Amino acid sequence: MSADDVTVVPAATLTGYCARILEGLGVPADQAGVVAGSLIEADLRGVESHGVHLMALYADRLRGGHLKPRTEVTVVRDAGSSALLDGGQGLGQISGMAAVDLAVAKAREFGVGAVAVRNSSHLGALGWYTMRGADAGCITLAAQNGPPFVPPFGSVTGIFSTNPMSYAVPAGEEPMLVLDMATTAVAGNRVLLAQKRGDPEIPAGWANDDRGRPTTDPTKASVRHLQWFGGYKGYGIALLVEILAGVLTGASFGLVDREPGELTGFDRVTRGYLFVALDPSHYGPMDGFRADVDRLVRDIHASEPAEGVERVLVPGELEHRRREQRLIDGIPLASALVDELDRIGRAAGAGPFPG
Amino acid sequence: MSADDVTVVPAATLTGYCARILEGLGVPADQAGVVAGSLIEADLRGVESHGVHLMALYADRLRGGHLKPRTEVTVVRDAGSSALLDGGQGLGQISGMAAVDLAVAKAREFGVGAVAVRNSSHLGALGWYTMRGADAGCITLAAQNGPPFVPPFGSVTGIFSTNPMSYAVPAGEEPMLVLDMATTAVAGNRVLLAQKRGDPEIPAGWANDDRGRPTTDPTKASVRHLQWFGGYKGYGIALLVEILAGVLTGASFGLVDREPGELTGFDRVTRGYLFVALDPSHYGPMDGFRADVDRLVRDIHASEPAEGVERVLVPGELEHRRREQRLIDGIPLASALVDELDRIGRAAGAGPFPG
Repeated sequence: MSADDVTVVPAATLTGYCARILEGLGVPADQAGVVAGSLIEADLRGVESHGVHLMALYADRLRGGHLKPRTEVTVVRDAGSSALLDGGQGLGQISGMAAVDLAVAKAREFGVGAVAVRNSSHLGALGWYTMRGADAGCITLAAQNGPPFVPPFGSVTGIFSTNPMSYAVPAGEEPMLVLDMATTAVAGNRVLLAQKRGDPEIPAGWANDDRGRPTTDPTKASVRHLQWFGGYKGYGIALLVEILAGVLTGASFGLVDREPGELTGFDRVTRGYLFVALDPSHYGPMDGFRADVDRLVRDIHASEPAEGVERVLVPGELEHRRREQRLIDGIPLASALVDELDRIGRAAGAGPFPG
Repeated sequence: MSADDVTVVPAATLTGYCARILEGLGVPADQAGVVAGSLIEADLRGVESHGVHLMALYADRLRGGHLKPRTEVTVVRDAGSSALLDGGQGLGQISGMAAVDLAVAKAREFGVGAVAVRNSSHLGALGWYTMRGADAGCITLAAQNGPPFVPPFGSVTGIFSTNPMSYAVPAGEEPMLVLDMATTAVAGNRVLLAQKRGDPEIPAGWANDDRGRPTTDPTKASVRHLQWFGGYKGYGIALLVEILAGVLTGASFGLVDREPGELTGFDRVTRGYLFVALDPSHYGPMDGFRADVDRLVRDIHASEPAEGVERVLVPGELEHRRREQRLIDGIPLASALVDELDRIGRAAGAGPFPG
């Protein structure tokens, strides 16, 4: 991509503009700031699929009445180390933040806490929540389900979403460890991009054709036939995600639509999710835990790279470095995305794209 | 394998003999029964790698003084929904059973419980514990670390074990869901077996050669260079297992030996592990949860198989069916294994192999 195709924007400017757009769409100012902040954090880390690119989707759903602009989170149950919240069919970031904070509070009191949410919507990047938990000193895990389009291992019937999961682990002097991933081998847009670019081949295991036959031909690979990472083992993890995020919470799951809303099945807007936080200080001194995580990270970094590998990495390391750099340099946005935001912004009364 | 190479033994006979062997090696009768029972359960499910085949290893370590025959489990910390146990360098099954039962008790009281164990040893199959938790009505997860020999993704330095994890989820009329897996693509003995048989090829991603280069040639693949299931995503899960089972518990982890015992590093006998139990009845009616798991399982079973697939499966299904069959037919044991057990049994004063 040439420099002409990219606009570089300071994170704060982008956050402010996206927040104003959301406010223009009826989202209260404090909630708009939270949602915008979560998207910009993803862009800072280079996770563009979960950055401001999502504004178009959110705007569309807010305008269509499929998402409530004012998110009201209600407590369905709360006892001991567990709780169940209802996300009020509002913005996922609002109930998600409430849920992870409650899980952390429970972990501090009881050692471990598990907070489930139903009737919410798209959360953005799960890492945003698990990092928030790790910032507060807890090992934090997240699992989220979604609309049915990915088949079980060995099937051609869509029953699951890409069922993402994430964890973050606090460290000492090293940056925290962060894994944030779909349980499919890749997201559908990786396949679409390969098709659009005319790539001759995609790696084995990304997606099957529409009869469920393995293929490395991008023109035959179907985004309705994404495959699980690591075959049946990844399928096993995805099934656990579906149960924790969908079944346990009483949310929609698999082929079952259980939450209010016009859009169901493949178009399902609602999501269920679960956050688990674990406070290491209930098992031993926190300083010792942090030092041991540092030690493990350093032993990994000091290990001998395989032939052709430059550096042995830990999860979240590349994203952490990218964030540091983009906080200084700004966030590069493709011109098409800038145009899209400009259009949404003008329509929402937030004015033209800044700069 | 011809019928001559196989002896079929009723489960109860095999359990009794293995228990007598363990008693002969100084293990108290009640503990011997538990350990033998866990091994026979693995054989019933067809998980031979974690069945009575392990008796030789256990006998060796008991005789060598690396494992204490009488396992004394002590409570290091116990508060709220968390606890830390010390496995007294004894048999893993004893502290593991105590830990999973405590996690379930905490889940019943608080909604979720997480019990960590350090200074224990080989647990056998993790599924034995998670199924016990699911039998008691809890979604149960287990993670275990071990001696360092598997490199981080992109490295040739052994820092991790095969870092297994397991979960079990209670259902209603359907059998519970059970996943029990190494986070490496396969266990080392799958590679060794391919070498022994002279297989022309192994699947890509099982193991690298001794310079960390990918290979499908079994003669070049190294059991010191096993690869993670699903590449860097599986590595991310394995790292979480190391942190939950090793770092959080204060056990040995990575290259750090922290527990007593002569055998360290690659020969490390001690293990750390974590069990997490989650009681669905704290989030909604238990009957509803069970019915929803059944519904999900049935939708998976009713889904259309991909070309060449006979039946779409859920985790644990094949093992469950095998168990039902072997409870009736008995457990088939290779003659070499029968001979080995006979030798160990005679030496331990338990007499010859029965039958």
